[in-house]
Amino acid sequence: MDMDDKDGLRAWLIALRTPGLGPGGLRERLDAAGGDIHVALARLRAHPAALGETARGWLRRPDQDRLAADLAWLAQPGHALLRCTDADFPPQLDNIPQPPAALFVVGDASLLLYPQVAIVGARAASAGGKAHAGAFARALAGAGFAITSGLADGIDGAAHAATLEAGAKTVAVVGTGPDRIYPRKHHELARRIAAHGALVSEFSLGTAARADHFPRRNRIIAGLALGTLVIEAGLRSGSLITARLAAEQGREVFALPGSIHNPLARGCHRLIRDGARLVEHAAEITEVLAPCARSLGGELEARLDGRDGRAEGGLPGGADHPADPDYRRLLGELGHEPATMDDLVQRTGLSAAALSSMLLMLELDARIERLPGNCYQLLPGLHAPG
Amino acid sequence: MDMDDKDGLRAWLIALRTPGLGPGGLRERLDAAGGDIHVALARLRAHPAALGETARGWLRRPDQDRLAADLAWLAQPGHALLRCTDADFPPQLDNIPQPPAALFVVGDASLLLYPQVAIVGARAASAGGKAHAGAFARALAGAGFAITSGLADGIDGAAHAATLEAGAKTVAVVGTGPDRIYPRKHHELARRIAAHGALVSEFSLGTAARADHFPRRNRIIAGLALGTLVIEAGLRSGSLITARLAAEQGREVFALPGSIHNPLARGCHRLIRDGARLVEHAAEITEVLAPCARSLGGELEARLDGRDGRAEGGLPGGADHPADPDYRRLLGELGHEPATMDDLVQRTGLSAAALSSMLLMLELDARIERLPGNCYQLLPGLHAPG
Repeated sequence: MDMDDKDGLRAWLIALRTPGLGPGGLRERLDAAGGDIHVALARLRAHPAALGETARGWLRRPDQDRLAADLAWLAQPGHALLRCTDADFPPQLDNIPQPPAALFVVGDASLLLYPQVAIVGARAASAGGKAHAGAFARALAGAGFAITSGLADGIDGAAHAATLEAGAKTVAVVGTGPDRIYPRKHHELARRIAAHGALVSEFSLGTAARADHFPRRNRIIAGLALGTLVIEAGLRSGSLITARLAAEQGREVFALPGSIHNPLARGCHRLIRDGARLVEHAAEITEVLAPCARSLGGELEARLDGRDGRAEGGLPGGADHPADPDYRRLLGELGHEPATMDDLVQRTGLSAAALSSMLLMLELDARIERLPGNCYQLLPGLHAPG
Repeated sequence: MDMDDKDGLRAWLIALRTPGLGPGGLRERLDAAGGDIHVALARLRAHPAALGETARGWLRRPDQDRLAADLAWLAQPGHALLRCTDADFPPQLDNIPQPPAALFVVGDASLLLYPQVAIVGARAASAGGKAHAGAFARALAGAGFAITSGLADGIDGAAHAATLEAGAKTVAVVGTGPDRIYPRKHHELARRIAAHGALVSEFSLGTAARADHFPRRNRIIAGLALGTLVIEAGLRSGSLITARLAAEQGREVFALPGSIHNPLARGCHRLIRDGARLVEHAAEITEVLAPCARSLGGELEARLDGRDGRAEGGLPGGADHPADPDYRRLLGELGHEPATMDDLVQRTGLSAAALSSMLLMLELDARIERLPGNCYQLLPGLHAPG
């Protein structure tokens, strides 16, 4: 980092930490200053009338230790501040209501330019809901999308974890400072996301978990992604906020239906009544979103096209390499006659547990059909690989 | 039956049995004849050119034994032919595409003037689907609607049976002659429907089950009802035809969502994608249909209003009398704190089986909420009866 960068970063950090300024206030002043943070900050100091006394105090005498700590954090490898004036700031965030002025990123900041699908849902998700989150994440990642979520317990964590396990890209947008992990149990998951994906926050270092920060976090999840998939959600779930924000931002909203006796299906059902697309298969999402990604052009388009060839004939979840023998063996043994799990164990030599997860993925990818009595067959029109 | 009636009936039976004439052709000729069947039949005999040789043969020399058998059947108590020229022909059928010219009815023909909800679905329904059919039938019957269905195995049969068990009104529209029962296993059910409801067919006596008659039957089910609820349906289910016809006729279509792993939820999901209303509670259906019933005015309105007061504060399924002690006891023991099934067995002294069915009905009626872990509580805003 050269001196000029450091001065600019320092000015940004002062502005971002100015109490009551907020991303809207900062963006407004930057616009007026032609995008120059030094000019914006100087004018802010010269005319702080609109701000409160705390802000004026901070602008007069910012906490040097805190700024030094911020700069030290940013100097670490893999840490970055993505400013709205930077060329690689995700353009899809510029058009949402109340766009963030800057994002702290741990990991691969270029991921924010990937076409993304958000997968969100209940913290108290059911085992089935978490399995769905994982299977949709694998299938969508296999189709070339990065999977974006909120690092929360339940659906969010399942989506991140499954994407990482498939060797694919995931983005976690958190409601705390980028140096804080909430919930604690996701410490190890956050470490893996930082190492193989990106962990993103608009909140300054040291910001603890606060209830009112999560809806703010949700607008960024919804804004980064081309579409948001809600897997399971109660009627009071924060995921409904994310979905509403996505719809308001003109993004696609998808929701999984469920039994009328599952309270965690009610939020999804409400979304569907309100216009969200009901989905049963990951392919329904890729069909809708692939043209959106292309229409955005530029970086997003290139990313998706780069992966598209792989995705179209491919299998979900990193198992799309012709060398993946297990999927080929399973598809080879499935026909248009229903086969039971026992049949498939016998024919493939794979364990029931392994088959169960592979079958779920193939089903979500609309390659096979599950019939009553736990039987499986290829969907009409599809053929087993030769 | 006086002689005049018998002559008229005889002319109708000849016209209805004329091969290739069909309900459209008969209605056209009746319209041209000012509604007089004798004039219409005389003109048909005088100008049979548009019809085939079989029809001309029949019109020249109708089978007297068959007509005598038809008249003998119609002379039996509870048997009737409802002609489109009759004042009590259901007016809602006049505006559907290809309306029937007449209906054979066994039982209470006035039921066709009741506000009706159709409940249809898969023949190979799951146990859960049949339970839903029964519970929605009871709740909707309790709200003042007659329940109309197709007497088929599975969802249809469950809806009819539950309505009868609740002492409410049900209409079965069959795809055979009114003297034939299909499937055979529904012989006893059909007998009870004839005794306490109405069994309806547009097909002449002796007509056996034919695949192409069931879609024709479906247009009458959809046309009689203000709305059609599909409980479970595969992607190739005839229920989707009924639902499509209902939508084309400007009627409301409702569908129950389910797990993405249930092949019998797929048809419902397709309907919802195509614009059907996703429903979780019977109350969502009554809210939509009660104003429709009123806007139809006349007989339908009077029927619904006559039952409305009872329904509004009432309990579903015939258990709405303040004297019904079991429901009052159960509601009295339910609070806004979750209670387990064990709690409720202990508090009410009712069996788990009885409670289970009562709780499902209360849930469908949006009076209670089922929470994870099989717990139940009153929905917010509702109070236990004093």
